[in-house]
Amino acid sequence: MQKTKTKVGIYGYGNLGRGVEKALLNPHNKDMELVAIFSRRPAESISTISKDVKILSEKDLEAYKDKIDVMILCGGSATDLPIQGPKVAKLYNTVDSYDNHKEIPKYFNKMDMAALGGKHVSIISVGWDPGLFSINRTYAEAILPSGSTYTFWGKGVSQGHSDAIRRIPGVKYAIQYTCPKEEAITKVKNSEHPIFTASQMHSRECFVVIEDGIDKIFIEETIKTMPNYFSDYDTTVHFISEKEFKEKHSNMPHGGIVLRSGKTDNENSQMIEYSLKLDSNPDFTGSVLVSYARAAYRLSNIAAIGAKTVLDIPPSYLSQKINTN
Amino acid sequence: MQKTKTKVGIYGYGNLGRGVEKALLNPHNKDMELVAIFSRRPAESISTISKDVKILSEKDLEAYKDKIDVMILCGGSATDLPIQGPKVAKLYNTVDSYDNHKEIPKYFNKMDMAALGGKHVSIISVGWDPGLFSINRTYAEAILPSGSTYTFWGKGVSQGHSDAIRRIPGVKYAIQYTCPKEEAITKVKNSEHPIFTASQMHSRECFVVIEDGIDKIFIEETIKTMPNYFSDYDTTVHFISEKEFKEKHSNMPHGGIVLRSGKTDNENSQMIEYSLKLDSNPDFTGSVLVSYARAAYRLSNIAAIGAKTVLDIPPSYLSQKINTN
Repeated sequence: MQKTKTKVGIYGYGNLGRGVEKALLNPHNKDMELVAIFSRRPAESISTISKDVKILSEKDLEAYKDKIDVMILCGGSATDLPIQGPKVAKLYNTVDSYDNHKEIPKYFNKMDMAALGGKHVSIISVGWDPGLFSINRTYAEAILPSGSTYTFWGKGVSQGHSDAIRRIPGVKYAIQYTCPKEEAITKVKNSEHPIFTASQMHSRECFVVIEDGIDKIFIEETIKTMPNYFSDYDTTVHFISEKEFKEKHSNMPHGGIVLRSGKTDNENSQMIEYSLKLDSNPDFTGSVLVSYARAAYRLSNIAAIGAKTVLDIPPSYLSQKINTN
Repeated sequence: MQKTKTKVGIYGYGNLGRGVEKALLNPHNKDMELVAIFSRRPAESISTISKDVKILSEKDLEAYKDKIDVMILCGGSATDLPIQGPKVAKLYNTVDSYDNHKEIPKYFNKMDMAALGGKHVSIISVGWDPGLFSINRTYAEAILPSGSTYTFWGKGVSQGHSDAIRRIPGVKYAIQYTCPKEEAITKVKNSEHPIFTASQMHSRECFVVIEDGIDKIFIEETIKTMPNYFSDYDTTVHFISEKEFKEKHSNMPHGGIVLRSGKTDNENSQMIEYSLKLDSNPDFTGSVLVSYARAAYRLSNIAAIGAKTVLDIPPSYLSQKINTN
């Protein structure tokens, strides 16, 4: 068993950083210790859950080299991680939630070079999709190689679609939930091996607050006919008050289902299902990152170096209960 | 990529051995090749799916040392594997489905000694419970350390309970299905964190064929009051004809659900669900064993030795699609 705690840093303190902080404060994760939070914002403007944690800035990055075992990168995938990831990976073992699916191979290579250079381990694209869903697709497709895999997302907030609605003049607040279609899930579970378009698997539900005097019918029509975002989907628009919006739509629930419908011969159907129902997407993702920070530290202890994905990590390396040394 | 196929042997040819054979014949598993089946029964009495496979006996075991990369042990956990496992592990890399939960640590140690002695890898207790369910409990409890884990089994056949009914005089054929209780699953999914007795989670459904002239009421009463097996459970007994029994109850369906209901703070509930719905339990378990045979071979190629469990194996090692070298 480890005698000392694994010392963890959080790099970037938005919703995800706060989710990581919550997970590190969980008494079951007492093998880990939050040492410092690195943020672009001034320390005075940041209100953390922990009372005594140091708030540092990028310029302190090198100074903590010997005081932090694993840095959990909580920046965004669009602009933060491609820059921050390789820079931090030269100095620290890292874990991140890079989720730009198409760019993962390119990001992997950049992180691999940086981590090999610094003789550190970097576990990339940790979370639930990519992450736990990738793990489950891999297991399920290895075990049932003849079959079909389906991923349903939601019910959960799509930031991109929410933003698209907010850009319509006259819209004050808006949130969009992507919802899996029950009838589509049922078809898969009945081993019908359906072939779906994206809009046959999901519908879109929008909650919108408009400015006074704006025409609801016009706004609804503008949303429903928006190409790429809504025009191909069953879309429902609800107009609600600002009060209701703030009361009922400030959480960040999400979830989804990975289904593998396979056959082991001409007769026998076999179904593997993995599903998540999350009240808070950032808190859950933060918990996943902390588990993989434990794995990163254990890997570094056996002199592993370079970039890794969740597919490279044995399940036992995540566990508080299993001694992997 | 491997240039030559991984050469596999099957040790024991009952329902599970046949499930392994089916998986090895799947065109997606063409990186693997069935070389020989070892059986206690005379070769003439065995009807395999593959046309040209060699049927050998235990005395041929040593002779195939250089012709087989991984031996998949398909004997039973009660009496076969404790004897066969260590013996074969001295000569071959092995994969087995040892499922006597309480005895796994003892079996692990025996297999570890044998495998280390022979410089081979032995992956033990592969299947779905223990196996895929163990993996999912490990991931879920690492990620949501504050919470409760629930395992529901079924709908599926319990051999022990079926046997208990068959021992009642006057019973000709009998099968017992363990069924998860929907209301119990609903409570867990509603994040109620219920505390259950075993009988609050499962009911028992029995299909019985009796001899002519036997009193149904007496048989039903005998089953329902049987201590340990049925008296604590909601038990339903159906009397059916021999014809119906053979038509509808000769498959071996099974399945189950692992649910982890956790919290990431005082408010947010997070739910992880893994479930299997299997038309054929032995065929599915056979497919899992073949995936782990791939992993065992890959481990042996990096000079790993000794006993392993599924928790020690990275997901990528199972995959036909991922090159782990």
